[in-house]
Amino acid sequence: MKSLEHYLKINRNRFVKELCEYLRFPSVSGDPRYKKGVAACAKWLVQHCRKIGMEAKLCRTRSNPIVVARTPRRRGKRRPHFLVYGHYDVQSPEPLELWKSPPFHPCIRNSAVFARGASDNKGQHFAHIKAVEAYLKSKTELPCDLTFIIEGEEEVSSPSLVSFLRKNRTLFRCDAVVISDTELYSRRHPTLSYGLRGICGMEITLRGPARDLHSGIFGGSIENPAMALCQMLGQLRDETGRVTIPGFYNDVLPLSLFERAHFLEHPFDGVAYKQSVGVRQLFGESGFTVIEQRSARPTLEINGLTSGYQGDGAKTIIPSSARAKITMRLVPHQRPKKVLAQTIDHLKKLCPPTVRMEIRTDPGSDPYFVSPESEKVQAALEALRKAFGAEPLLAREGGSIPIVDEFKQILGSDSLLIGLALPDDNAHSPNEKFDLDVFEKGMFMSAYLWQALARRVGQSE
Amino acid sequence: MKSLEHYLKINRNRFVKELCEYLRFPSVSGDPRYKKGVAACAKWLVQHCRKIGMEAKLCRTRSNPIVVARTPRRRGKRRPHFLVYGHYDVQSPEPLELWKSPPFHPCIRNSAVFARGASDNKGQHFAHIKAVEAYLKSKTELPCDLTFIIEGEEEVSSPSLVSFLRKNRTLFRCDAVVISDTELYSRRHPTLSYGLRGICGMEITLRGPARDLHSGIFGGSIENPAMALCQMLGQLRDETGRVTIPGFYNDVLPLSLFERAHFLEHPFDGVAYKQSVGVRQLFGESGFTVIEQRSARPTLEINGLTSGYQGDGAKTIIPSSARAKITMRLVPHQRPKKVLAQTIDHLKKLCPPTVRMEIRTDPGSDPYFVSPESEKVQAALEALRKAFGAEPLLAREGGSIPIVDEFKQILGSDSLLIGLALPDDNAHSPNEKFDLDVFEKGMFMSAYLWQALARRVGQSE
Repeated sequence: MKSLEHYLKINRNRFVKELCEYLRFPSVSGDPRYKKGVAACAKWLVQHCRKIGMEAKLCRTRSNPIVVARTPRRRGKRRPHFLVYGHYDVQSPEPLELWKSPPFHPCIRNSAVFARGASDNKGQHFAHIKAVEAYLKSKTELPCDLTFIIEGEEEVSSPSLVSFLRKNRTLFRCDAVVISDTELYSRRHPTLSYGLRGICGMEITLRGPARDLHSGIFGGSIENPAMALCQMLGQLRDETGRVTIPGFYNDVLPLSLFERAHFLEHPFDGVAYKQSVGVRQLFGESGFTVIEQRSARPTLEINGLTSGYQGDGAKTIIPSSARAKITMRLVPHQRPKKVLAQTIDHLKKLCPPTVRMEIRTDPGSDPYFVSPESEKVQAALEALRKAFGAEPLLAREGGSIPIVDEFKQILGSDSLLIGLALPDDNAHSPNEKFDLDVFEKGMFMSAYLWQALARRVGQSE
Repeated sequence: MKSLEHYLKINRNRFVKELCEYLRFPSVSGDPRYKKGVAACAKWLVQHCRKIGMEAKLCRTRSNPIVVARTPRRRGKRRPHFLVYGHYDVQSPEPLELWKSPPFHPCIRNSAVFARGASDNKGQHFAHIKAVEAYLKSKTELPCDLTFIIEGEEEVSSPSLVSFLRKNRTLFRCDAVVISDTELYSRRHPTLSYGLRGICGMEITLRGPARDLHSGIFGGSIENPAMALCQMLGQLRDETGRVTIPGFYNDVLPLSLFERAHFLEHPFDGVAYKQSVGVRQLFGESGFTVIEQRSARPTLEINGLTSGYQGDGAKTIIPSSARAKITMRLVPHQRPKKVLAQTIDHLKKLCPPTVRMEIRTDPGSDPYFVSPESEKVQAALEALRKAFGAEPLLAREGGSIPIVDEFKQILGSDSLLIGLALPDDNAHSPNEKFDLDVFEKGMFMSAYLWQALARRVGQSE
């Protein structure tokens, strides 16, 4: 491992340059205007994986291709096999005017690289790729086989990946999936996540009059769809922060005493947290700590509102329609389908007969939960401890990785969620960044991980 | 009057063509992109008034010019003096995709001309201009002096007109102001309006986190400004249709028994009304008829909502802010300043401490009310009866003409509101139109009006 560690150290600057190259592609999957950026990004990634000695190919889907890269296989010898999952697609960069440097012109400031996708997720899986390069180029023997699956549709709920996994079920059979698409607490508190929230969403449109109406001539006698929408949505959450949809909490797994006690030891700083997001006061479900509210409790959020006139000045109308996008984060053992049905039932009860309601649902993904005492989790903790020189934390993540539950369902594999994004990395926000110190530690962690995993998987067999 | 009537008849087609010319100018005052269209429109109007024999000039303001046109004065003889007020500016034509023919390419279908501004307000005041032309060109003696004030900022609350009236108080002193900027019930039910609603408005912005936040990572612990806005706005109106702002109804003049009885005789067809606006069910303040709800009761409307992501697909964020535009229609004797203050007080009480609220108010205009028994109103009823061959209705208008109260305050003059817009003329909406039969009857009404008014004003002196 000495020569591998040396290789990682002396090539650090080049790795940063290559990451910047990767970040230059505007691979936004949620907006068809970026189609070309997505395609170019996938192509670059395949070529890069080949350059460092992996077999790599672009696998077509109905929409954005999936990049599959494999380390060279050894004939005859059965070795542990691990998947590394990541995604090269990124969120929309809007609102553009809030970026200090353009989202697709990576810029290094304060030992971090700023660009859309820097931490979510290009930087994180690139650390794993560079660890493989170090193994292959420093002639250090990899104790296992690795397959990278880097998809291009994570930010739009991975519509192609599931059928792709099903088709290639045999090829992808593995001892574990490693995913770096979550957060670590800080450089001194590397983190292993054993739970994820699920998600489901919908777009609700209320239609009133056939056209926008003059609010003087008609106002007072016609329902205002924007008002009806506000009244409906406003009733979905009460003043204690609880979602009021009947049955919403029925399937929620209560937090164990162990978890609640462990979470209390997390180095959470409420004042710094408020400052980092720019609010004077927090708001969440009463009876739970902020850590619990963010990761182990379900939520309902309005992601967008649209109605009537939104330009400068005034337009005195009753808008003909009003629309909201909402998403719900789910925790074990809530199921998206059931929650969507409960929500629709409730909205139908709340909707006045004076407007017509249209609902489009997004099926979303299940929440995920894995035992923090398994051998694989212990291996990941060991690699984190060694690379970061600090005791790792066990955490649940508030975000959703739609595919984690699919890996379990289709391949039967647990996922190890080893986050390399810092809490202030601005994922999904303007000025997204990726810390270069974490990038380096992440490469070492990945290098150590395969040793620890291969040994422990071998022992447990 | 015979030769005048003949002149109006034989020149009808030319008048329609000229109106179409006038409608071609995109004189949108609410959007700076139309600045040129506004200026060209005003210029054309001045030239047109000169061509028919009036003295006309463009009076500069800080923004859009005011067109002032006068009939030739007679030396020595004191005659009654009436103002005709109108506006050549129009509402924004958006949403453009809903227009069957382009908003600024007038198109004649079903005996109506379709264009933005056709009925609000170009067509209506153009009828008065053509009546003057008939007097002047048919050598019929006008029994009074007339001054037209056609402004270019009515759709943006007439910011220049008040100081302009104050400066020219002596010049504009008059026996009455005639305004055609309201509705008539139908061709068989010409209408004189004796009341107008006032208006005031505000833009409410709630600011939460400093940036859009990932709803997975942060969701559950941070207030969602869109949810807070919905909860606040949703409380401003109760299920009986009443505005819940404390004190809102304190100054409302109750409807008299005479008014309520007269309104019941209006030929209002609820089924046709619902069909015309495209709703299955009406909604309004309980205890009042639709006519009362639309004209004699105050309202609160949400005109626009904006928050977070509004494009296609989903974006899983907690938006950093949420904004609403609201307007309130006021009835005698509510005062905009007082209502705005009551609303702000109430919003402050509703606003949770987890968001910051910013409010921008629009001072708006007072409601208006004139006695339906005055001599001037009787003169207008006489002219309407003769031109339309039907018994006119007395009505209150739901819309606001910000300047009517100013004419009363500054010039001491009552206004006669003689509407020429049909209920389905789509003012402020796509496919705005002006009925050409009403246009013709409007010209006759205007011609008769000066005779009736001059006689009655003379008698009452």
